[in-house]
Amino acid sequence: MTETIKIERKGDVMVVVNDNPANRNALNPDFYVGFAKTLEQASSDPTIGAIVLTGAGNFFCSGGDLNRLKSNAERTPEERRGGIDRLHGMISAMRDCPKPIIAAIEGGAAGAGASLALACDMIVAASEAYFSIAYVKVALSPDGGVTAFLGKALPRQLVTELCLTGKPITVERLHQFGVVNHLVEPGSALDEATQVAQRLTRGPARTMARIKSLCHGAQENTLQEQLDFEADLMVMSQGDGEAAEGIGAFLEKRKPNFTDLRRTEAEGEG
Amino acid sequence: MTETIKIERKGDVMVVVNDNPANRNALNPDFYVGFAKTLEQASSDPTIGAIVLTGAGNFFCSGGDLNRLKSNAERTPEERRGGIDRLHGMISAMRDCPKPIIAAIEGGAAGAGASLALACDMIVAASEAYFSIAYVKVALSPDGGVTAFLGKALPRQLVTELCLTGKPITVERLHQFGVVNHLVEPGSALDEATQVAQRLTRGPARTMARIKSLCHGAQENTLQEQLDFEADLMVMSQGDGEAAEGIGAFLEKRKPNFTDLRRTEAEGEG
Amino acid sequence: MTETIKIERKGDVMVVVNDNPANRNALNPDFYVGFAKTLEQASSDPTIGAIVLTGAGNFFCSGGDLNRLKSNAERTPEERRGGIDRLHGMISAMRDCPKPIIAAIEGGAAGAGASLALACDMIVAASEAYFSIAYVKVALSPDGGVTAFLGKALPRQLVTELCLTGKPITVERLHQFGVVNHLVEPGSALDEATQVAQRLTRGPARTMARIKSLCHGAQENTLQEQLDFEADLMVMSQGDGEAAEGIGAFLEKRKPNFTDLRRTEAEGEG
Repeated sequence: MTETIKIERKGDVMVVVNDNPANRNALNPDFYVGFAKTLEQASSDPTIGAIVLTGAGNFFCSGGDLNRLKSNAERTPEERRGGIDRLHGMISAMRDCPKPIIAAIEGGAAGAGASLALACDMIVAASEAYFSIAYVKVALSPDGGVTAFLGKALPRQLVTELCLTGKPITVERLHQFGVVNHLVEPGSALDEATQVAQRLTRGPARTMARIKSLCHGAQENTLQEQLDFEADLMVMSQGDGEAAEGIGAFLEKRKPNFTDLRRTEAEGEG
Repeated sequence: MTETIKIERKGDVMVVVNDNPANRNALNPDFYVGFAKTLEQASSDPTIGAIVLTGAGNFFCSGGDLNRLKSNAERTPEERRGGIDRLHGMISAMRDCPKPIIAAIEGGAAGAGASLALACDMIVAASEAYFSIAYVKVALSPDGGVTAFLGKALPRQLVTELCLTGKPITVERLHQFGVVNHLVEPGSALDEATQVAQRLTRGPARTMARIKSLCHGAQENTLQEQLDFEADLMVMSQGDGEAAEGIGAFLEKRKPNFTDLRRTEAEGEG
Repeated sequence: MTETIKIERKGDVMVVVNDNPANRNALNPDFYVGFAKTLEQASSDPTIGAIVLTGAGNFFCSGGDLNRLKSNAERTPEERRGGIDRLHGMISAMRDCPKPIIAAIEGGAAGAGASLALACDMIVAASEAYFSIAYVKVALSPDGGVTAFLGKALPRQLVTELCLTGKPITVERLHQFGVVNHLVEPGSALDEATQVAQRLTRGPARTMARIKSLCHGAQENTLQEQLDFEADLMVMSQGDGEAAEGIGAFLEKRKPNFTDLRRTEAEGEG
């Protein structure tokens, strides 16, 4: 674990804090590797049902550290690529993590900080926050998947404007678009995101892992491919003890108890 | 024809009613096969210009029948896959049908009922209706293409929320997004959808079939692939008697008559 | 250069005027070839930083010339295909042009005129303007990439409605969706678009070319492919003199000067 990652537990929710507030939680390779490893451990921990990612001190994340980026010009292309690969390894780890990751955003998410937020499965943001794809201001092209995430969610003309000008977009507008799930009072993003996550921990863990995969797959599969993917996972879901509990509870008009199933059977195929 | 499918004609519009109101029009394999066969017949019937799909009794469709789904756990994976394949065969038949299919939604569209609605080419919905991707509540992962349809239309964060929580989304919000075409007074969805469909029956049938293909293709083709697809179909359209009538009528400042062309030449390549 | 293309310069902005107002700037193969050639020349001209595309006389473009289209029925499929290929060659040239192209829209953009507008990187439109995918009215299927551009930006149900009915959509609604970037007073689209373009000319030219490529790529790449694309381009950006200037200026708290870099080093890899 790197010293800029702080882990807390709130029941079955793991809260990951990017804890570098003096530098507006600027990112560095240690964070990339540390967060990817944290997610890998969480994936196989049956006591964790959902993950919240936030930043310390009223700002989500300002992106890459410019002092470090400055020195990149002196590195070889291979060395530069290595740094980007670590960032992208973290983004892939977020996608591959079977548990939902909820971003809790105060203040802003800039540059690779926007990538980090958009790689999450859901986003809770304080109403005055903004996103900015600020790379162009220092003549860098975006990384961390931000063009992938925005490009699948919003029209190309808007994405082009955001990336060519670096000008901020409010979370209010992103909420209208459906990119931000919940707009909350400034100062309450972490609490609200934690509540969202806690409700998710009461859901069927393996089924939810399948749903997360489907939501990612839908961005890139053809209709026929996605139908096949849905069918493959539905065959699993129908044979899973979670569905037996879910359908049984529904027909018996009682609340299902998925939490015990997760805590005791978490090494399933999810 | 299964007994839960009722067919009506309103001029050149075929109205298909999912007629199982005691069970909120819950779906079953007979419906999947029956509706697919109905569409196949409609495809080659020159007297049909457009199709309306609705549900009996003020609710569009509640999705899969839970009593039937409960028994799936006892089936083999191959048997389960067979049931899903029939659902997916119907979804593919809806995409492949050369005629536009308009959903008329009252009340709600839940689970596979949301898939059924979203597989349509256009959606007319009563203003108080909702969609819900309710599968997760009984620990099932979605099928019927709902993750494909939503994933191409809305940001992943919103799709993930809808699928992980099962919470409803209003048709009012779906209308803002452009997923629902027309919001109408409760009780009038079928009438309004039928009017939309009747206007479409006066359009050029073969050209409209090409347009439907293009609208589906655009979801999964690259720009270059879609340009090639457009070019292939435009070469056909330019040589089609429909264009002769359409361009001729425009230059002569009269209304085109495509209906007679459809009724007499419907075995074209469309 | 064809006589329906008029070129003006406003500082480092090249303004291209589709100048055929008597015919509402209807398109013809000469325009396709001429505009593609204009873009090719602009690509390697270091004094041009951005391009504005507009139409003469208060209407952006009415699409294909119907008198010419009428004669297509008498041409062979190969001849028809040749005309479409020229249109599509222009659309590809717009995508491949490393410099941002801003559409300035007054009045309306219809048929292939809508394709032309949507192929641009950003759109500035007078508030009373509209788009219409009017092809169906004369029984033609759309070309020019309009189904690709709309299909990646908007839900299929809305795209289908626009293409099956030909009914107009206001630029106000397209602005809500993020397809139109700026809504402006009628009569001021060209001025406002030119100002947007002039601000872009002060940005880092090679980095912006990479950003444009990423924004197009995001529409069709998988997440992993786009991450790799971002990484490839970021390795270049980090080693580029533009980033040295951008990061240096930021750390020195001064304004970066990218314009001189463009004017002197424009034959870079961008």
